[in-house]
Amino acid sequence: MKALENLFDRIVQRVNINLRELEFDVNPLVKDLVPFKQLVKFYAFYGITPHHLLDFQFKHSNLAGSYFLGKCSVTNSMLYKSDIRGDELKKKGDVFRYQDFEIPVSADEGIEIEDSFLIKTLVHNFSHDPETLEKFSINSTISTHYANIHGSPTDGSFLGPFSTVDLTTMNDCVIGAYSYIQAGEINHLNIGPGTIWIRSPENFNFFYRYPQQKLSHYIHFSAGQWPQGLFIDFVEDRKQAFQRIFNRVDIGPSVPVPSSASLDRFAVIKPKTRIGENVLVSQRAFLQNTHMGKGANAQEHCYIINSRLKGFNVTAHGAKIIEADLGQNVFVGFNSFLRGRPDCRLTIGDDSIVMPHTIIDIIKPLRIPAGHMVWGLITNGDELEANSIPLSALSKINGSFTKGNMLFEGNGNSFKAAFQERIQHILEANGAFYDGSQCEGHAQKNQNISFNMIQPYPEGKLEGVYPTIRIQP
Amino acid sequence: MKALENLFDRIVQRVNINLRELEFDVNPLVKDLVPFKQLVKFYAFYGITPHHLLDFQFKHSNLAGSYFLGKCSVTNSMLYKSDIRGDELKKKGDVFRYQDFEIPVSADEGIEIEDSFLIKTLVHNFSHDPETLEKFSINSTISTHYANIHGSPTDGSFLGPFSTVDLTTMNDCVIGAYSYIQAGEINHLNIGPGTIWIRSPENFNFFYRYPQQKLSHYIHFSAGQWPQGLFIDFVEDRKQAFQRIFNRVDIGPSVPVPSSASLDRFAVIKPKTRIGENVLVSQRAFLQNTHMGKGANAQEHCYIINSRLKGFNVTAHGAKIIEADLGQNVFVGFNSFLRGRPDCRLTIGDDSIVMPHTIIDIIKPLRIPAGHMVWGLITNGDELEANSIPLSALSKINGSFTKGNMLFEGNGNSFKAAFQERIQHILEANGAFYDGSQCEGHAQKNQNISFNMIQPYPEGKLEGVYPTIRIQP
Repeated sequence: MKALENLFDRIVQRVNINLRELEFDVNPLVKDLVPFKQLVKFYAFYGITPHHLLDFQFKHSNLAGSYFLGKCSVTNSMLYKSDIRGDELKKKGDVFRYQDFEIPVSADEGIEIEDSFLIKTLVHNFSHDPETLEKFSINSTISTHYANIHGSPTDGSFLGPFSTVDLTTMNDCVIGAYSYIQAGEINHLNIGPGTIWIRSPENFNFFYRYPQQKLSHYIHFSAGQWPQGLFIDFVEDRKQAFQRIFNRVDIGPSVPVPSSASLDRFAVIKPKTRIGENVLVSQRAFLQNTHMGKGANAQEHCYIINSRLKGFNVTAHGAKIIEADLGQNVFVGFNSFLRGRPDCRLTIGDDSIVMPHTIIDIIKPLRIPAGHMVWGLITNGDELEANSIPLSALSKINGSFTKGNMLFEGNGNSFKAAFQERIQHILEANGAFYDGSQCEGHAQKNQNISFNMIQPYPEGKLEGVYPTIRIQP
Repeated sequence: MKALENLFDRIVQRVNINLRELEFDVNPLVKDLVPFKQLVKFYAFYGITPHHLLDFQFKHSNLAGSYFLGKCSVTNSMLYKSDIRGDELKKKGDVFRYQDFEIPVSADEGIEIEDSFLIKTLVHNFSHDPETLEKFSINSTISTHYANIHGSPTDGSFLGPFSTVDLTTMNDCVIGAYSYIQAGEINHLNIGPGTIWIRSPENFNFFYRYPQQKLSHYIHFSAGQWPQGLFIDFVEDRKQAFQRIFNRVDIGPSVPVPSSASLDRFAVIKPKTRIGENVLVSQRAFLQNTHMGKGANAQEHCYIINSRLKGFNVTAHGAKIIEADLGQNVFVGFNSFLRGRPDCRLTIGDDSIVMPHTIIDIIKPLRIPAGHMVWGLITNGDELEANSIPLSALSKINGSFTKGNMLFEGNGNSFKAAFQERIQHILEANGAFYDGSQCEGHAQKNQNISFNMIQPYPEGKLEGVYPTIRIQP
């Protein structure tokens, strides 16, 4: 166990050195978060298919329960039940378009994680930084429960629970719990909890901050204890269901799956669930009594319960949808928490956009009309009114605009278009538009994956540390 | 699947080139033995502990269902449910004694398997060839169902089902079904089925051949079909029990296991089994209603059913013991088949030696007295008389001696001593004499193994072939 403890200390020290200017000490926040003994018991696993770049290297690391798909190297790091998805890595010879540049990719892109500690973090590599096309790196970074590092190379940073950095290159920053940052590039910032910040320099700037007291009911994180709140209780309550799935080497689907769809063998599917054509259900997703219409997807760590999704729905990493009816083309962003009740359902009309990190938690029925964008905390009709805008109205904004806690500056149409393009890309990448021969995506390419399960040294001074493993074609 | 078929053709060609002088064509024998489609479904696995040299390399190979422990490299080979046990590899700095020589081992020994096809073969590396101390190699060799390659580097050879080469360096040889060869070094021999040959040049020579017609009831192998006979039926009948064990990632022991004993998690344990102190139960062993006394072992692929083993018993690879009572220190050699019946049990007295590849199959109770050696086919008291000798009488032989089908030449005492030393080594290596601090062996060192499970490409042109995998400390 000694090697594992040394590794942890090394990572904490590296992160603290990077964050010294912010006078931020990660040690009290993370010192009790590591169940060293449990780390030895979990197996990590990596996927092998002919469709993904095969080049894994694991060295002097602990990978407890983590999942890897696509080229990845992990050195001196602890990855505890994190998902590392490299299935959108750029390939040698690709041409990357950025503003007016056309940049040829000179080598197969790879994910490199070094001196980092990720707890239940989702890493998805779809990266946009034109400066580092061939390398997606996460260095000297600690990321806690259910955070998302999405297309965001990070260096020397700390991510609080349920936070997301998305398409952002980040250096020496602290991201508070449940904050969502999509800002191109950020440095030396300490961002408080519940901050939603979407910026495209010279185009737009969207800013919302959750009322802190209300947010702490859902998620609260402070030194010396595990993250607290409803979000944590919600996932903990459903932990058992995953156990059965992880205990078995091979497991068949429990519901019919169309030949154009894919249901990951590490997803939980409870009774009365229906999977439509071109549907993608990713690992560690949880579906219960839910209908997934054609082209809908349920991404990693998302929970969809007693709900109907009409089709071409995106349910992004970590989003939860309970007792809800979603129209066609509805987008639900990262880590959103949408909770209707059996006697008062949540209804969302076609083409609406639920911004990342939105909480809708109602005790009376609520209907979001078609073509709306919603954000922030919504518990009733009044709050919906304050935290939403018709997309048609959004596209007319040019300048400064405030509504409730939200501040918007810039071009509304460009903001709307950026979202819609992104949603289109997600649906395409996930194979929602597959027609039997064209437009293949993850739903088709991820149907047949070999999972290789690996464990660390079971005892001795290297207990908990994985041997050096290199996998190549 | 193309790569897998090419690999198979390449191996067959290499073996045939090696066996051309014997005019032996392996193609008709093996062409229907390969369930290509199944090879894709199984996972192979390797064990990680701090006690074993960690250096695995798998390249351009299929490893369906195989098990690896200790330093091993596999290139251009197909290993179908074979066990490769490298837990007695010599280490750099060891001194190897051979006759009057003291040879320093200059590098950690490793097992190298290249251009070979092993079906359900047990490879155990305890090697004795003074010419190749650092490398235990199996090249251009095909070995079929339940054969044992035991401390025997082989090159360009073919092993029939249930055959064993033991402490023998073998070049360009064919070993018939159920033959047991322990002969130091052999070249360009074609050995018929059911041959038991134990030779120590200038010391002794033991030779027995099974009556061919009677042997074929137990095992028969000819071109164009799977091996036939009671041995195959016996293992096929018990195949299902292993399925449950291989389907689960982690599995606890179903019976109490003393802290000095080890029960492999890939062994089948049926009810009413008792495991004593210092007992070793290896992977793919099958125990049912059996008492394993202190220091007894059940090696790979052995079946012990409705039996009592008093203590310090060796049940070697592939041996079967049914409805029998074995005294203390009884040795049962490789692939022996000892079958009593519920109403007529087989009893074997203390210190007796059942030679490798002995068949005892009775319909009336039979008692082998203490201190005897038995061999060959025994179905009744008369045959026991013809195929056994008291160890005390054996040790007095000097010269030529025949009994039944058996021919012995040389020094009986030296033959007996060689066996007894070997049995002592096996018990020591397996930890039978562990006293709580001293004399650790496999029973203690194999208690805590991490098993890493690996699978081949699931589809595409590399379907069934494993990626290149390198595992180092």
